[in-house]
Amino acid sequence: MDATPTSSASTSVTSISSASTSPISTFSTQQSRALLQRAQSVIPKGVYGHYGSAIGRESPIFFQSAAGSRFVDVDANTYIDWMCAHGPMVLGYNHGAVDEAAAQQMEQGNTVSLASPVLIDLAEELVGMVDDMDWALFGKNGADATSLAVMVARAATGRKYIVKIDDGYHGSAPWMQRSEAPGTVAQDHSLVISIPWNDVVAFEEAVRAHKGEIAAFISSPYHHPVLTDNVLPADGWWSAVQQICRSNDIVLIVDDVRAGLRINLAGSHVAYGFKPDLVCMGKALGNGHPIAALLGTEALMEAAGDTFYTGTQFFNAAPMAAALATLRELRAIDGANLMTKLGTQLNTGLVDLAGSHGLDLRATGVPSMPYFRIESEGGFRFHAAWIRECVKRGAYLLSYHNNFVSTAHTEADIAHTLAIADQAFAAVGQPESG
Amino acid sequence: MDATPTSSASTSVTSISSASTSPISTFSTQQSRALLQRAQSVIPKGVYGHYGSAIGRESPIFFQSAAGSRFVDVDANTYIDWMCAHGPMVLGYNHGAVDEAAAQQMEQGNTVSLASPVLIDLAEELVGMVDDMDWALFGKNGADATSLAVMVARAATGRKYIVKIDDGYHGSAPWMQRSEAPGTVAQDHSLVISIPWNDVVAFEEAVRAHKGEIAAFISSPYHHPVLTDNVLPADGWWSAVQQICRSNDIVLIVDDVRAGLRINLAGSHVAYGFKPDLVCMGKALGNGHPIAALLGTEALMEAAGDTFYTGTQFFNAAPMAAALATLRELRAIDGANLMTKLGTQLNTGLVDLAGSHGLDLRATGVPSMPYFRIESEGGFRFHAAWIRECVKRGAYLLSYHNNFVSTAHTEADIAHTLAIADQAFAAVGQPESG
Repeated sequence: MDATPTSSASTSVTSISSASTSPISTFSTQQSRALLQRAQSVIPKGVYGHYGSAIGRESPIFFQSAAGSRFVDVDANTYIDWMCAHGPMVLGYNHGAVDEAAAQQMEQGNTVSLASPVLIDLAEELVGMVDDMDWALFGKNGADATSLAVMVARAATGRKYIVKIDDGYHGSAPWMQRSEAPGTVAQDHSLVISIPWNDVVAFEEAVRAHKGEIAAFISSPYHHPVLTDNVLPADGWWSAVQQICRSNDIVLIVDDVRAGLRINLAGSHVAYGFKPDLVCMGKALGNGHPIAALLGTEALMEAAGDTFYTGTQFFNAAPMAAALATLRELRAIDGANLMTKLGTQLNTGLVDLAGSHGLDLRATGVPSMPYFRIESEGGFRFHAAWIRECVKRGAYLLSYHNNFVSTAHTEADIAHTLAIADQAFAAVGQPESG
Repeated sequence: MDATPTSSASTSVTSISSASTSPISTFSTQQSRALLQRAQSVIPKGVYGHYGSAIGRESPIFFQSAAGSRFVDVDANTYIDWMCAHGPMVLGYNHGAVDEAAAQQMEQGNTVSLASPVLIDLAEELVGMVDDMDWALFGKNGADATSLAVMVARAATGRKYIVKIDDGYHGSAPWMQRSEAPGTVAQDHSLVISIPWNDVVAFEEAVRAHKGEIAAFISSPYHHPVLTDNVLPADGWWSAVQQICRSNDIVLIVDDVRAGLRINLAGSHVAYGFKPDLVCMGKALGNGHPIAALLGTEALMEAAGDTFYTGTQFFNAAPMAAALATLRELRAIDGANLMTKLGTQLNTGLVDLAGSHGLDLRATGVPSMPYFRIESEGGFRFHAAWIRECVKRGAYLLSYHNNFVSTAHTEADIAHTLAIADQAFAAVGQPESG
């Protein structure tokens, strides 16, 4: 641990860097709480959506600045950020080449009455990079890609049913929400069949029960739900899914919005050895600049062209330039393998450390997107208490959601996080039994 | 007309300005066509969505640069842009104060694991500015706002039906598309009741037929469909709608995504004298930076808080900073009235000019968003030919869609456009009868 004394109040890039090795000395969320109160009078719940879900007891709520692998909250606490903005930050905050590419395109024009040629450059880059994919369409959020994917599958097959995985998240459009979710109606859910992850028999049964009526199967490359251990594909799962889809003319959609670019730059499906028909990308694609993409095979190009799905901001050129720079940088530094290596180091370190405190920490999912859970009689409450102690000391993690590794994280960040985790384990002691 | 000779090939801001008064001398779309061909091998249709719809015979397809009220295409043709990127450009391309605000926020942090305080500043600004509205939620595209609005209405009422206007556009989500649209299914449309614009009796009948089952009525403040004259609210229309909604506990949603900020900065509903429950905003809100908003009344705040609707990019701080700067600038220069004045001048000028050529040009809708149509036996084909001749001379207009005025347009732009239109009328001659 570097003991350089620094002021965590400073917000410049340099001081974020140097403050990084100094654990938070006087943790407070006073400013965040004051802002939340102000927010609540003009915004339902103050902070909404997945950012609202992340608000917990003693957690920071508003940021002041960010750079590299760190952000500083409005109370001047500096954190090593293992959430990476829920995924989009993949090369580090304020990445020079990416932000410069966006700024240059912004100067040429961002949202104009015509498209920019950078649209083509980006589509060519993606088609060249992601295996088995022949074309690309762009939107803003992952849900744009998943919604469009389902429309293309329906347009191509003339069928209506969609098979998804229990607790699989594909954005917050009504059809993708739970049937009891406020604001959704029975019609939103009536065509969605949900089966357990890794359950080939359940998929076969669904196909039998709706013979010739299933347009698409949609799933993330591995199962990363909230509040429960993440699960990799079982041996034979994806080859069985692919075979069932092919024999029944069902469109195979991979929702690679969350895991995309963190497992294999050629597509997460390459890591698991199967060939999808459509691949949804988002999050990391623009390193924080708003862009999502749907990629597809030649066979679906006509159906995709027939499907109308657009938005005012779908043609923003600056985020396309940012995405192009992000992809090129990820390839140059072999980003997915680097994040896998760093993630493995973090996860192994934390699991070993927990063991030394007599605790059984599980790190599930892929190494670059670890979901942590302490297996104990204290259950989730004990785990959440440990995460809270980590956050208070400057390692930003979430208890109920997978975390994210970026290429900006360093071995020093990992060492620092382990030191924080060690103190956090000491602070929470042992779970109460029973 | 200023006859300063300039090179339209140059793309710097200065030369765009000076080139502006020089009509295009050698119009070509060779580079655009070559790029489209390249695009078509990696993108379905090459250019998709509403940008794809705008591609016509001889039209430019890709831009190279943009500034103020102009853009330059990849063939170095400079245009006075009356489409304003389909609405978002409201203060001019590359607006100093707006882009500077976005760049500054980008440097502090854009997409981070926490929200930025600028979220609150923007919500406060909107709530202070738009009459009758008490809270705000943010997304990226207008469809995020309209989809969320419907969810909030359903959550608040526990009802499922939505009443909309025939040919009213509220984004490309499946439920908002035509029932025959590829990729949509019967379930998407089964809860949407469509009635003619300005038809109070039809609304009353719909309410009677679905007593106690209608969650919301959604409409733009006036009727701006494609390919047909736009129609302002008839006397008594909005007060009747409001009264029917109130007596039947139906949530009144105004989709102000397209017209918002171009009629009245306090909300288009203020211009038409009624009080909605929810207001959808987008397009002009960020002057090209991607942001949309749903505003609502106190009574719906709890239902909005209960509704989960989010996206990876919903918390991008830079577009929020851009929106804040856009709203402040629009207020400072009384933007809506300025655009109304400029639009009136453009429309009157074009209608008079058409008359001098013996043609009956109709400019419908509000002055700042004119839909043009030449009433003739030549029908749409003749009108489209005239628009094509305008475009070839440097006035970018669309034949089938309303156009847009911005505060960056000048009286010189109008004079220049009138001169172009004059030549275009001469070029097309008279419509063939029968």
